[in-house]
Amino acid sequence: MNYKVIGKYIGYILLIESILMIPALIISLAEGQTKAVIGFVVAILASFLTAMLLRFLCRNTNKIFYAKEGLVCVGLCWIALSLFGCIPFWLSGEIPHFVDALFETVSGFTTTGASILPEVETLSKGILYWRSFTHWVGGMGVLVFLLAMAPEKEQGSGFTMHLLRAESPGPDVGKLVPHIKETAKILYLLYIILTILNIVFLLLGGMPLFDSVCTAFGTAGTGGFGVKNDSIAGYSPYLQNVCTVFMLLFGVNFSCYFLLLMRNVKSIFRDEELRLYLGIVVGSILLIAWNIRDMYSSVEEVFRHAAFQVASIVTTTGFATTDFDLWPSFSKAILLCLMVVGACAGSTGGGLKCGRLLLLIKNLRRNVHQVLQPNKIQVIRNNGRPVSEQVIKNLNAYLAAYSLIILISFVAVSVDGLSVTTNVSAVLACFNNIGPGLEAVGPTCNYAVYGLFSKLVLIVDMLAGRLEIFPILVLFTRSGWLQR
Amino acid sequence: MNYKVIGKYIGYILLIESILMIPALIISLAEGQTKAVIGFVVAILASFLTAMLLRFLCRNTNKIFYAKEGLVCVGLCWIALSLFGCIPFWLSGEIPHFVDALFETVSGFTTTGASILPEVETLSKGILYWRSFTHWVGGMGVLVFLLAMAPEKEQGSGFTMHLLRAESPGPDVGKLVPHIKETAKILYLLYIILTILNIVFLLLGGMPLFDSVCTAFGTAGTGGFGVKNDSIAGYSPYLQNVCTVFMLLFGVNFSCYFLLLMRNVKSIFRDEELRLYLGIVVGSILLIAWNIRDMYSSVEEVFRHAAFQVASIVTTTGFATTDFDLWPSFSKAILLCLMVVGACAGSTGGGLKCGRLLLLIKNLRRNVHQVLQPNKIQVIRNNGRPVSEQVIKNLNAYLAAYSLIILISFVAVSVDGLSVTTNVSAVLACFNNIGPGLEAVGPTCNYAVYGLFSKLVLIVDMLAGRLEIFPILVLFTRSGWLQR
Repeated sequence: MNYKVIGKYIGYILLIESILMIPALIISLAEGQTKAVIGFVVAILASFLTAMLLRFLCRNTNKIFYAKEGLVCVGLCWIALSLFGCIPFWLSGEIPHFVDALFETVSGFTTTGASILPEVETLSKGILYWRSFTHWVGGMGVLVFLLAMAPEKEQGSGFTMHLLRAESPGPDVGKLVPHIKETAKILYLLYIILTILNIVFLLLGGMPLFDSVCTAFGTAGTGGFGVKNDSIAGYSPYLQNVCTVFMLLFGVNFSCYFLLLMRNVKSIFRDEELRLYLGIVVGSILLIAWNIRDMYSSVEEVFRHAAFQVASIVTTTGFATTDFDLWPSFSKAILLCLMVVGACAGSTGGGLKCGRLLLLIKNLRRNVHQVLQPNKIQVIRNNGRPVSEQVIKNLNAYLAAYSLIILISFVAVSVDGLSVTTNVSAVLACFNNIGPGLEAVGPTCNYAVYGLFSKLVLIVDMLAGRLEIFPILVLFTRSGWLQR
Repeated sequence: MNYKVIGKYIGYILLIESILMIPALIISLAEGQTKAVIGFVVAILASFLTAMLLRFLCRNTNKIFYAKEGLVCVGLCWIALSLFGCIPFWLSGEIPHFVDALFETVSGFTTTGASILPEVETLSKGILYWRSFTHWVGGMGVLVFLLAMAPEKEQGSGFTMHLLRAESPGPDVGKLVPHIKETAKILYLLYIILTILNIVFLLLGGMPLFDSVCTAFGTAGTGGFGVKNDSIAGYSPYLQNVCTVFMLLFGVNFSCYFLLLMRNVKSIFRDEELRLYLGIVVGSILLIAWNIRDMYSSVEEVFRHAAFQVASIVTTTGFATTDFDLWPSFSKAILLCLMVVGACAGSTGGGLKCGRLLLLIKNLRRNVHQVLQPNKIQVIRNNGRPVSEQVIKNLNAYLAAYSLIILISFVAVSVDGLSVTTNVSAVLACFNNIGPGLEAVGPTCNYAVYGLFSKLVLIVDMLAGRLEIFPILVLFTRSGWLQR
């Protein structure tokens, strides 16, 4: 294991983080919130100095960088990011307990949006801004950002691909253009454009600037932290619909937008994953609208709430306009399934991903056909191109790890004695980076009901979910640390 | 598809079934229950005549019999078995609705033990006997019985292996001795010996003969239908402990007993699956006992109930001595996980099987190691012997199918508006052939709360679970029917 190169990258990440905290510091200064200012100053100094120290300690490094280093690097970077990112919450006294502050920060960076706060409107503006901004940073990934910024000479040994692969969601990461660096730049550019568009549409509906920016951050990262206690419920129907549309847009594979820029519209609509995603969204909205038709006064309201909640859950955002915990079981069952499915690969959303679901179904079909016709060799194709067997193997290992982690976490968080539905939905909502669950962790409740141990379990779940298990799993293996 | 050979085997199965119903008919005659007698007579005649008809229609058949025929044959045989087996319940009027009678029968043959009856003590003895006897028949499998009985000349084209593989539980079926027929005979012999031992131990504890036989059938098949409304709760602690021990024994891979007969004790205790199984059982008992320590008056009672419920759920039997739905969440979470895990492969128990869990974990470990050391070829070993890649592929397809079916069934049964916990546990309890779930389908409740559609979904789940998905899945594919 090349520890020095990992240390170097953690240093870079902390340097970036210290810069990213500056806007929040400025807002706190402008608002005159002394305690928040102290929190941000300490956090910025701590991460900057640690970054410099790591840079000094790891200055003479060789460029050996394999997939192993990529995984460990991504896992540790995200942990470091969260540990330093929670300092403002903690020191400002607005989240007094360290583990709670860490929970909130991990929930932010992993774009989960699960909160331990009973209400958010009492938080100072600088803290609220930082809370929402962590979603935006975590959505596209910080190492992707690093790749976009890094000087060309750094990109030896194919390490960039390992990093991108370990941080980006989905069964297989494709490069948009031959150079990784350019790919990363294009991704961030698209991300910024879409976020600005989102802010503009929110401003047009009369939402205040601060609310618009924070809500757009939460939408873009498919996170779900809002600035109001009632999430999006208090805003006008127009604003709710804007959120619905943008949540769905951020759940689409970003390579579709790249194809759009290349004016290759045909191949977008031929994309099998996108079709599945849209099919699931439309189907779920119709089924839920039918199921809750008697609960609201007008058809418009029924469809608005159905569409908003479906978009929020399937993209793993976690905003809410209504308390879906009060919906009938059938709607809740659909939402629980959407929690598992998640958005498209290569989007900012979490969950299993539609692309994985598609490959799982195709692989299952192949397996059945192989039993029926043992002598026919069958290749799995995605959008017409054959999928390598290694991708299928990784997919299967992913599903196994996914199931095992969910079962173990479910038992672990049950020690607090909350209901089975609460525990199942909490684990699903955290692991799939959604946020609200059902019953005691429903949209009108929060995760403060859990004890210390359960919170730590859920923190690990959120990280494992966002980084798609393996970077975190490797940190728990002996061979991940010891082998050369 | 060679339909004639399939028809021939369905004919055999129905012939066997008509013979198997005779003891229940005799009991009904002795008890003078006219309606039950009519039910059994009609059922025996119907299955006998259908058997003869199929025999006549499918008399000139070639011996072409591939894996495909094996799967379709097993799927259809079990459906035929259930359709004719439910006639006595229905015609006797003791279960007035046909779908309810079918539910009860499928639940019996698949050794699920889920009941739609609010109470069983009002049933006539012949019906009660047949209800428990379906467990015993379904536990080891009827086609295995057929294999044991079939004349030697029938065993061309390797079809016996296909049948055994499609009906026996576990990721990979091994032959105990070179000949399949001998293997099947040994399996049934062990099954009969263990059942008789079980009856003897129950009789020694003062349980009446009828109760002993029925309880032993429910235990041997890991089914769970009892003859009392309170399941096993009303019997003495000794009898409860006898049940605990025998449930655990029937959850062990039967090849272990064969090794025992061969006096090869060493290799039994080196068996990795058995170790995992025993580890899970002991661990779960200790955790639950600690969790429920304040709920019962003595340590003996705590351990007795913990051990009984763990044994009942992990072996997928479904007997109960106490209402575990009243236990704290942590214990319920463990029980829900045990529902998924299930017993050993090659036992009469259902669920995922410990052997599959072991292979999943090993495959996951291999996958992580492959990322860490991409150039090292790693073979998965089970008890020291390499596992073929095809077994791993089938295992992964199985896990994918398992997860998808559970999700879809969960949404489907939610239409009745019962709680999330009820629905999740009902699907898990039916698919894994356990029986009781939580809340509205808990150990003191029954499945009558569900509507017609949900009952049909659960019937399919029980069959898919017992036959390990593929024989049922193939019946739903177009290519399973049409291709030659």
